[in-house]
Amino acid sequence: MSDFKYKGYCSKLLRVNLTSQTASEEPLNESDVERFIGGRGLGAKILFDEVKEGVEPLSPENKLIITTGPLTGTRVPTSTNRFVITTKSPLTGIYGFSVSGGAFGLELKKAGYDGLVIEGKANKPTYLQIEDGELHFRDAGWLWGIPVFEATRLLRETLGYDYRTIMIGPSGEKLVKIAGIISDDRRASARCGVGAVMGSKLLKAVAVKGSKEYTFADPAKFDEALKEAFKNIGIQPGPWKEFRQTGTQSGPIKNNAWGILPTANWRESVFDKAAEISYPLLRERFVVKDTGCNQCPIRCTKLTLVKDGPYAGAATDGPEYETIYAFGSACKIGDPRPIIAADMLCDDLGLDTMSTGLTIAWAMEALEKNAISKSELDGLNLRFGSDEGLLNAIKKMAYRDGALGKLLSDGVREAARKVGKGSESYAMHVKGLEIGGYDPRGSKGQGLVLAAGSRGGCHHAYGVASFVEIPQGTATSAKGKGLLVKGTLRVRVMIDSSPLCAFAASRVPPPLLARLISAATGMEMQLSDLERAADRIATLERAYNAREGVRREHDTLPDRLLKEAVPDGPNKGAVLTPEELELMKTELYEAMGWDTSTGIPKRSTLEALGLADVASDLARAGCL
Amino acid sequence: MSDFKYKGYCSKLLRVNLTSQTASEEPLNESDVERFIGGRGLGAKILFDEVKEGVEPLSPENKLIITTGPLTGTRVPTSTNRFVITTKSPLTGIYGFSVSGGAFGLELKKAGYDGLVIEGKANKPTYLQIEDGELHFRDAGWLWGIPVFEATRLLRETLGYDYRTIMIGPSGEKLVKIAGIISDDRRASARCGVGAVMGSKLLKAVAVKGSKEYTFADPAKFDEALKEAFKNIGIQPGPWKEFRQTGTQSGPIKNNAWGILPTANWRESVFDKAAEISYPLLRERFVVKDTGCNQCPIRCTKLTLVKDGPYAGAATDGPEYETIYAFGSACKIGDPRPIIAADMLCDDLGLDTMSTGLTIAWAMEALEKNAISKSELDGLNLRFGSDEGLLNAIKKMAYRDGALGKLLSDGVREAARKVGKGSESYAMHVKGLEIGGYDPRGSKGQGLVLAAGSRGGCHHAYGVASFVEIPQGTATSAKGKGLLVKGTLRVRVMIDSSPLCAFAASRVPPPLLARLISAATGMEMQLSDLERAADRIATLERAYNAREGVRREHDTLPDRLLKEAVPDGPNKGAVLTPEELELMKTELYEAMGWDTSTGIPKRSTLEALGLADVASDLARAGCL
Repeated sequence: MSDFKYKGYCSKLLRVNLTSQTASEEPLNESDVERFIGGRGLGAKILFDEVKEGVEPLSPENKLIITTGPLTGTRVPTSTNRFVITTKSPLTGIYGFSVSGGAFGLELKKAGYDGLVIEGKANKPTYLQIEDGELHFRDAGWLWGIPVFEATRLLRETLGYDYRTIMIGPSGEKLVKIAGIISDDRRASARCGVGAVMGSKLLKAVAVKGSKEYTFADPAKFDEALKEAFKNIGIQPGPWKEFRQTGTQSGPIKNNAWGILPTANWRESVFDKAAEISYPLLRERFVVKDTGCNQCPIRCTKLTLVKDGPYAGAATDGPEYETIYAFGSACKIGDPRPIIAADMLCDDLGLDTMSTGLTIAWAMEALEKNAISKSELDGLNLRFGSDEGLLNAIKKMAYRDGALGKLLSDGVREAARKVGKGSESYAMHVKGLEIGGYDPRGSKGQGLVLAAGSRGGCHHAYGVASFVEIPQGTATSAKGKGLLVKGTLRVRVMIDSSPLCAFAASRVPPPLLARLISAATGMEMQLSDLERAADRIATLERAYNAREGVRREHDTLPDRLLKEAVPDGPNKGAVLTPEELELMKTELYEAMGWDTSTGIPKRSTLEALGLADVASDLARAGCL
Repeated sequence: MSDFKYKGYCSKLLRVNLTSQTASEEPLNESDVERFIGGRGLGAKILFDEVKEGVEPLSPENKLIITTGPLTGTRVPTSTNRFVITTKSPLTGIYGFSVSGGAFGLELKKAGYDGLVIEGKANKPTYLQIEDGELHFRDAGWLWGIPVFEATRLLRETLGYDYRTIMIGPSGEKLVKIAGIISDDRRASARCGVGAVMGSKLLKAVAVKGSKEYTFADPAKFDEALKEAFKNIGIQPGPWKEFRQTGTQSGPIKNNAWGILPTANWRESVFDKAAEISYPLLRERFVVKDTGCNQCPIRCTKLTLVKDGPYAGAATDGPEYETIYAFGSACKIGDPRPIIAADMLCDDLGLDTMSTGLTIAWAMEALEKNAISKSELDGLNLRFGSDEGLLNAIKKMAYRDGALGKLLSDGVREAARKVGKGSESYAMHVKGLEIGGYDPRGSKGQGLVLAAGSRGGCHHAYGVASFVEIPQGTATSAKGKGLLVKGTLRVRVMIDSSPLCAFAASRVPPPLLARLISAATGMEMQLSDLERAADRIATLERAYNAREGVRREHDTLPDRLLKEAVPDGPNKGAVLTPEELELMKTELYEAMGWDTSTGIPKRSTLEALGLADVASDLARAGCL
């Protein structure tokens, strides 16, 4: 696919109503772009304005908002295909978004749209076909029920392979709350149950094809900034060069050495088989090719293949670190083969690997503790380390099949709620979102990231503090982490809103990002403007959640992390006390201008950020 | 994909040598085209000339010959994408070919080639990339081991989706003798172990893209004939219209009613669950869409989907009748769900469904008879009716895994040879090729088709006599069947050489076929010319096998069919005696001008057909 030029960013949104089967184009508000950039920021803005408190996430009133950003479709490394899906999450009940690479974002841009806002609910399974300015509502009855890989092939074979698609699997169709959306090239917008929202609208897929070209506002300036970005990506030695070799697959061995590799549903923090499921052994034994998102120069994706045993033939782009952690150490599976197979299966059935793995890990512990019985798992041998149990559980969860499906398909919070018997204390989620794989008792800033993150217990939304505090040698201290996280979240919000891949943040640092966006769009953005936009977006996300009832006390962690000491490894005995967490929260709230007693953004902060309308709305909703 | 025009047929062949990594173009010999048409006929000619007796099928000396024909790429219904793969079969040791639809044949033509002759053996896994006149030998190390579906996606994602591919799965790589070759749109060139030959050359895939246009020799005349073909396809009522509804999936119920549905490894001839695995129930419960080969107006392919149970999510183009028979009635599996899953799995792993199913059915009987033990099947519960056993056996066969893989991966003849203990008598193959699903004791002409067919025990090469003799009411009689089969084989050879889909034979009857070929190529072909070409091709095939040692006595049937009476159903008590078979053979040989004592084509026949060179070669080889 060739690079294409575009002039400015402000083009238009396509608003599609599935209930009435109508659509309209609307110009993208220039000031919204300046204030919220695009991608994550723009999605948050539309969600805040249009999906009010109390909307049932799986009702027609919820919306699926798909946004690109000013750098989508440019050759800025990692930006080419980036897009963001925003919705009210059925898994958490709050603000939800999921970022993805692949090829869909670029195609949407080429079709002339900076975003899609999908509303209502079709009366039968439907897919959307968008070609440049043209939209068709198409019958998807024949695709309904077909897993992602085959359904994608069938759809593209029908429409032409110049279409790029996003699609749900059986799990999304069955409103499984940990279902994601998968693009034709196997990239996943996995988190927050975005697939269930798509399923609730009876929308199987969106297929897009475009031929539009854009011109940059200032091509010369853009090219100059672009060159710098490529130089950073291409030449700088050190960790970055290493990253091309390892991708995220060095995570297990690294986090294990740091003593923060969650193991056995977070009961332990080191895994004796970490090396087996990590770079370099993974690379030696399983990686067959370095690949990457469309046009991305990094090639951090590691195509893996299982060559023997019962999972022979399983091949997947990945698994990434978080998937290895979720199916590997968290489930105590030390053989990469079932992990690769599980990763592939989740993509095909449309499941979020992290939420799936953590929910299964919880069930393994609950079974061991007799909080649940084998019959509640349809007789499945769901013991720690059971690869067969893992794979069968995934299938059942995707289809809501049997007692197991009924219990586990909506994620770990819901499962623990149903079971009770103290199992909530080891249900590893925050606000309903299964948490990322960095033990905050050995990396305290990461505890704040997990506790306060805008979409729940996530390793992404506020950045990975571990990567800063561990090399700094400050990981065991809580003090100063509010400020540190303000820094990581700011960068992450900018990155997600441009949008770029999180992995590019160090090579396209904020000042360079500002130059790129300015040159591309013609909207003069200084670093300080970007930082202000990031604060604005993070505060808007916070406001969204506040309107849904989220308060300071909800920014917390699973009991296990606040009540148990690390039992093993380099951090043995380490704790993260509730007091430490509260200290970090206060620091962060203060740094962000959020009320330290409620966690709600202050009116003064909102107004200073130009969010007076948000303040009014929060006041209307009784939050201010 | 748009229609394209071509002038004449005689373009060129691309000869590729994998050993030396060189290639050359050679003009297609006009007289060969006139005499052997294309497709099957041309493949047989090249094979006869270039792959002599004694060549080990899996050695570099064997060749993989891929031919299109004069109607490939035209809009003649069912012809658009047809191509033929010819090789010396590792499964049978004799002449082998496999016909397929899909999209690859058209693309090969558009790239400027009427055929590919692939020779030698690469020194590492390789794929061929052909774009118009350009050929590249590419490293396929990273694709080696990846099953067909994912490897196809990865390859097309790499090269561009305008490439069309044929590919082997793990089974072809592991030289499994029942491995086929699968095209990007899931069409299979399955029979005769063509995939093992490709694997033996370390050739994972051929990817082709073309943009050439051709003009017809006589466009007006072609269009006129084409209109007639479309009229036949489109309007004629009766069985044809029904075929669009049923595809081949009405086979089980129909053959069951006729008492010729092979059941329990051919021990029985009716299946009490025939209706369950047949149209109309299949259509009601499992078919989600009528599809078809690229541009084919018939849409006989039935896309099926398993919606629940352990095989939920399995989706396949088909299964066709022969697959349903092989995995269904032959294995006594009356649930379509594992049959659909098995069909999909075989496509992904690259296995021939018929050979796979019949080999498993044999193993089921051998296990029941204690001719083999469970430990020889790695403890698998391979009982008649065991869907779990079926699916696990398929996986093991594809990978040559364990004792089971070692025993079954090379088809039923080889398995029975290893086991002995009388198991050869119920190994349902002829000359090593597992046989098609029409019981010849209830349809005697079909017995001749199976016994004498040029590629072994096949329902395709000589046509399906059952479809003529049963409606005629002559199915229980042997007399006259030599002439009947001469008729069905002639038509089939013409169809395969043009090539068209066998299902189009009744709608594009030979006189119309002659008009179409003439108008397309500018070579004036009368019906009599086509008939003579068909006789020439069939005789050449016969000569090839004669040179390999095939004689009259090899044209036989499994003991079960010649020694046991039909035990049940409408044909209960029916037998096909050796005498009847011999009578039919003599009739056929006489009709074809083949020596009735040896089965070898007579010198006079060869000379009359303009095959003096073949006669000389047979004389050299001591056959004449």
